Amino acid sequence: MMDTRDPHGKGAGRIVISVDAMGGDRGPAAVVAGIAYSAHKNPDIAFILHGDEAELTRLVRRRRDLAGRCEIRHAERVVQMHEKPSHVVRHGEGTSMWSTIEAVRNKEATVAVSCGNTGALMALSMLRLRRLPGVNRPAIACLWPSRNPHGFNVMLDVGADIRADSEDLLQYALMGAAYARNGLALACPRVGLLNVGTEEHKGRPELKVAADRIAGAAQAGGYEYVGYVEGGDIPGARCDVIVTDGYTGNIALKTGEGTATLISLLLRQAFQKTPLSRVAALLALPSLKRLQKRIDPRRVNGGVFLGLNGTVVKSHGSADATGVSAAVKLAFRLAQSGFQDRLAARVASAVQSGQDATQENEGNGGAA
Amino acid sequence: MMDTRDPHGKGAGRIVISVDAMGGDRGPAAVVAGIAYSAHKNPDIAFILHGDEAELTRLVRRRRDLAGRCEIRHAERVVQMHEKPSHVVRHGEGTSMWSTIEAVRNKEATVAVSCGNTGALMALSMLRLRRLPGVNRPAIACLWPSRNPHGFNVMLDVGADIRADSEDLLQYALMGAAYARNGLALACPRVGLLNVGTEEHKGRPELKVAADRIAGAAQAGGYEYVGYVEGGDIPGARCDVIVTDGYTGNIALKTGEGTATLISLLLRQAFQKTPLSRVAALLALPSLKRLQKRIDPRRVNGGVFLGLNGTVVKSHGSADATGVSAAVKLAFRLAQSGFQDRLAARVASAVQSGQDATQENEGNGGAA
Repeated sequence: MMDTRDPHGKGAGRIVISVDAMGGDRGPAAVVAGIAYSAHKNPDIAFILHGDEAELTRLVRRRRDLAGRCEIRHAERVVQMHEKPSHVVRHGEGTSMWSTIEAVRNKEATVAVSCGNTGALMALSMLRLRRLPGVNRPAIACLWPSRNPHGFNVMLDVGADIRADSEDLLQYALMGAAYARNGLALACPRVGLLNVGTEEHKGRPELKVAADRIAGAAQAGGYEYVGYVEGGDIPGARCDVIVTDGYTGNIALKTGEGTATLISLLLRQAFQKTPLSRVAALLALPSLKRLQKRIDPRRVNGGVFLGLNGTVVKSHGSADATGVSAAVKLAFRLAQSGFQDRLAARVASAVQSGQDATQENEGNGGAA
Repeated sequence: MMDTRDPHGKGAGRIVISVDAMGGDRGPAAVVAGIAYSAHKNPDIAFILHGDEAELTRLVRRRRDLAGRCEIRHAERVVQMHEKPSHVVRHGEGTSMWSTIEAVRNKEATVAVSCGNTGALMALSMLRLRRLPGVNRPAIACLWPSRNPHGFNVMLDVGADIRADSEDLLQYALMGAAYARNGLALACPRVGLLNVGTEEHKGRPELKVAADRIAGAAQAGGYEYVGYVEGGDIPGARCDVIVTDGYTGNIALKTGEGTATLISLLLRQAFQKTPLSRVAALLALPSLKRLQKRIDPRRVNGGVFLGLNGTVVKSHGSADATGVSAAVKLAFRLAQSGFQDRLAARVASAVQSGQDATQENEGNGGAA
């Protein structure tokens, strides 16, 4: 077993990712295959892997890429997909998910990755990592293929919480901008607030309050506020970060995925229709693969939990080795950029500047 | 000029559609080209066309298919895209949009079609046609390409109103089912309520109340209730009718359209990448056209306003002749099926059975 904390050992300078091997739809074999692929591609990565020790030892031994780079932590139990988050919070100790988060809490690993039950993962992350000072509701951010030159937009919240008030939406803007800066390398991300139209009078009253606050915090948050954006802008080029509540964001995310799946299906059907089209399909294969690679949900796999004392990447429950490896890659990129510390500093500074503004207003006798 | 009301004239048995020629992004030429195409394809259709008489006369004269089948009604003014609905309600008399709705109100035409400002069209429709007895909020229903054998699902509301309480959602279920029965010829449509998960405990509390009411009214409404559905089910095969509030529905609709647009763009780019892929594209063209036809938003063009004393079809503002013709085809199909009377009867019967249930409960001393 390697000592992941030993700065002079073989793993010197390596970034350690804590990975939940259990709880995904395809079991630990897919997870081990995924991290082995990541280890092969990236020499600067190491793992702490959580789950059934006997099974994991057997699986890891077969992978030469993981030799000396993967510590196994035994966990007796597995959080099931159908378990309620409230139940997991009370009885989750001893599960592989709990152990995975614990390694980040103890600073043994920088980022946690799990394919398990989203609600339970968020609940355990909130319980063990605690929220960042100044954050009311953590959010899940996803990457979305887009027409922007960098190829992806960030959207949040996509399902951590079904509610969000104007304060929460402001924090989502701050956190989403920090994520885009570190995950997509954008110096000054453009932030849009999701609504049913771009005109100022459109939408719910609480959105107008949020719009004003997000616009006001742009300088402190290091982003540009572009105003309201519509559903069509989520895969578009008008902004880089789309802010919305978790109910709307979750439905938009799944609608987009469902639409892409339908089009893939229809495309296959279209190419199977006639003998000529089957020949055309063969010739078109490289082009279609290029497209597939661009919109494959497995390659943008990983919702990131933002607003906690530690970064957690949620991989799709159905992720195969490619999907797990994509989630690990994202975790590595965020760890390497020092994302967590930058995010905490940015939220703290915005909270501070908000307090200053309030005090100033109070000093002026409440004049806006 | 034909007399559209003359049952013994040349237009005997024809269904008359009232069409707003103005207010679309491409002007009256696209509208006249679209209705001419519809007239060519369908001998049982006739039009009352509203807008600038001189211009329309000139445009209609060029189209032989419209000879004797298109009455022109002069309207001085046009509702602009940026005008607020509240302003149009006060000052809309004399516009082509007002005149278009008036022809349905006066029973000269069965269905109205307009490419103009959606908010203004809904506001004028509510003002002049009035809501059906028992309906609180009218809704806009759209057709969505899906994996179902009939090729489309119905979703509502996609933007008539940003709010909807449980009573509204119940009415959307009734109206959406009636639309699916008449528009898609489904004897017993399957209705789903949009949520962030299919488990019963998921989502906002008001959705649970709506779920119970929609389940309870299934028999009176002539539909099957399948429970909660997710964003991925909108283009899926789990249900035929997706019920949601206008805020969520509008964002889902535009997200789906935006995703389809992005994929089309990426597909074109993929086929332009190399000389081989350009050759492949030529061979693949018939297949790609088949796909394009299947997901082309112009071919499912037309949101239908439900819950009014008269049917109004809202075509995309950017609709070209193909798009206008698709909206007219939808209007014709609904008119021919006697949709409006069936919908009114179904809502009235559900309201009645709701009242009966309440009285029964009261008779039982409030026992459920």
